Amino acid sequence: PDLEAATTVMQREVQLTKPRGALGRLESLTEWLATWQGRTPPRVQHPRVAVFAGNHGVAALGVSAYPAAVTAQMVHNFTQGGAAVNQLCGQADADLRVYELDLDNPTADFTHGPAMSEEACARAMAYGMMAVETGIDVLCLGEMGIGNSTAAAALCLALFGGNAEDWVGPGTGLDAQGMARKAAVVAAGVAANADLLSDPLHVLRALGGYELAAIVGAIMAARMARTPVVLDGYACTAAAAVLYKLDPRALDHCIVGHLSAEPAHRRLLDAIGQEPLLTLGMRLGEGSGAALALPLLQAAVACHTGMATFAEAGVSTRGGEGRATH
Amino acid sequence: PDLEAATTVMQREVQLTKPRGALGRLESLTEWLATWQGRTPPRVQHPRVAVFAGNHGVAALGVSAYPAAVTAQMVHNFTQGGAAVNQLCGQADADLRVYELDLDNPTADFTHGPAMSEEACARAMAYGMMAVETGIDVLCLGEMGIGNSTAAAALCLALFGGNAEDWVGPGTGLDAQGMARKAAVVAAGVAANADLLSDPLHVLRALGGYELAAIVGAIMAARMARTPVVLDGYACTAAAAVLYKLDPRALDHCIVGHLSAEPAHRRLLDAIGQEPLLTLGMRLGEGSGAALALPLLQAAVACHTGMATFAEAGVSTRGGEGRATH
Repeated sequence: PDLEAATTVMQREVQLTKPRGALGRLESLTEWLATWQGRTPPRVQHPRVAVFAGNHGVAALGVSAYPAAVTAQMVHNFTQGGAAVNQLCGQADADLRVYELDLDNPTADFTHGPAMSEEACARAMAYGMMAVETGIDVLCLGEMGIGNSTAAAALCLALFGGNAEDWVGPGTGLDAQGMARKAAVVAAGVAANADLLSDPLHVLRALGGYELAAIVGAIMAARMARTPVVLDGYACTAAAAVLYKLDPRALDHCIVGHLSAEPAHRRLLDAIGQEPLLTLGMRLGEGSGAALALPLLQAAVACHTGMATFAEAGVSTRGGEGRATH
Repeated sequence: PDLEAATTVMQREVQLTKPRGALGRLESLTEWLATWQGRTPPRVQHPRVAVFAGNHGVAALGVSAYPAAVTAQMVHNFTQGGAAVNQLCGQADADLRVYELDLDNPTADFTHGPAMSEEACARAMAYGMMAVETGIDVLCLGEMGIGNSTAAAALCLALFGGNAEDWVGPGTGLDAQGMARKAAVVAAGVAANADLLSDPLHVLRALGGYELAAIVGAIMAARMARTPVVLDGYACTAAAAVLYKLDPRALDHCIVGHLSAEPAHRRLLDAIGQEPLLTLGMRLGEGSGAALALPLLQAAVACHTGMATFAEAGVSTRGGEGRATH
């Protein structure tokens, strides 16, 4: 983190023609961007939205309202420009990249042992690192994977404890019976992998998935490349939580774009100390809630760079001591 | 309201490649826009941000951290492009209009009787109506007026009851002593105009201000012109609340862009049954919280119009009954 850049931002911020702090979180977003980009003013001209897609062995256990084939179908939809995230990237002038992780070969059913071998998990993490490239100002992360809210719930249960029911929600639209089945699968997964769960990276390989491991890799690479990260909803944040458990400061270069309607997202955000930017009842995944937050970052930087200072505008400062004259 | 347009939007919405309701509030925003524009799909290509500026007799009573001269200075800043709202309009491709309401002649000090005559209040309302013109897709409303969070608090106290302290906050940055003085001014204003407070429009002239009356006029004109309205923070919403008290349906064509950090905004939104789009701790006024919500409306319409249907994209619908084939 570049604290000097943060100081430079704060010194300008208090001179701009507004009461101190009146732009609220927009001001802290600018400071955060400068801190992690190491640049003043910070920039959000070239954002990227990276969507990772993977398939899950547990999808065969009836934990989703949609069949596993939808993962590949939606990847095709992304490439054709027909998904929500395509429209949101268009609005924010973001570059959309979709990364498929061997969709024909889902992870193993984690109720019988680890979802991934150490090697496969490491390969997926390395693949995720490719989403970080020179010239990207901000990286939004998202996922597509039928069954991955089950994997996310299992990750959260293993990382933060509680009951399976605390971390399970309707996902794409399960009824109560489906949610009970999903909770049983989550609990069985944690039980079957009990000997692996003391190390967060082993939790990831035991209960995660290829697209979730890729997100972990992307977050790590972004930190090295000074690229601030915007996380999406429940599955994406659950992947990020693996790093939080390794080191609570490991997500300081990340913010969360929105609060998902998936109920456990709130519990997870509380566990990792993050406050989402938007709360709009969305629960789509595919990076949509991260992409939708980009205009807020762009607005923050536009205010910081474009506004006049009190002196430039000839506006009186507080207390009525008259116009600032220079 | 055009309920047929709303139905057309909903019929398309359920065919788009996402679980039903997965875009949350974005879906209801599209429906709301179509309902009030009477057009499918709705459009947010030509938004306008109208900022009304007025001065207040009570500003002389020490109710603001800034001197009254700042109203005119900030209007100048708007015209020079140096304020926050200028940058936010640039981001959302919105047309910014600033309407000055006789800044050299503030309203009367309402602790001694009505702030405005009936005629002056009506003239300000009529002036506000001019902000609505053909070709504007959405109208964001904002205000600038040193002392107007005091007027807003007085309006709220007269319209919704409670104590003056319930409706008074720090505004641009008062300390506790300043807030106590402000609350006393608010209570004195309501007491001095007690005989006028049974009719909401008389409340407006007794305790409001020129820019607040203009906002009331703009909201009324927008309804007639089928232009959906985005309200800003506390002062703007307090003006709108006058219409709510006349008829609770009178603000159905309005949404609130953000929750202000001014504490009474939450209480006011609860009183008029509105849920803000953004909660970012902002408290700047000048239409900034309304303008910042525009990208959300634009994103909602972009998703609605640009997304593929299940049939177009060849994506399986829920339950796994196979790909939709047409």
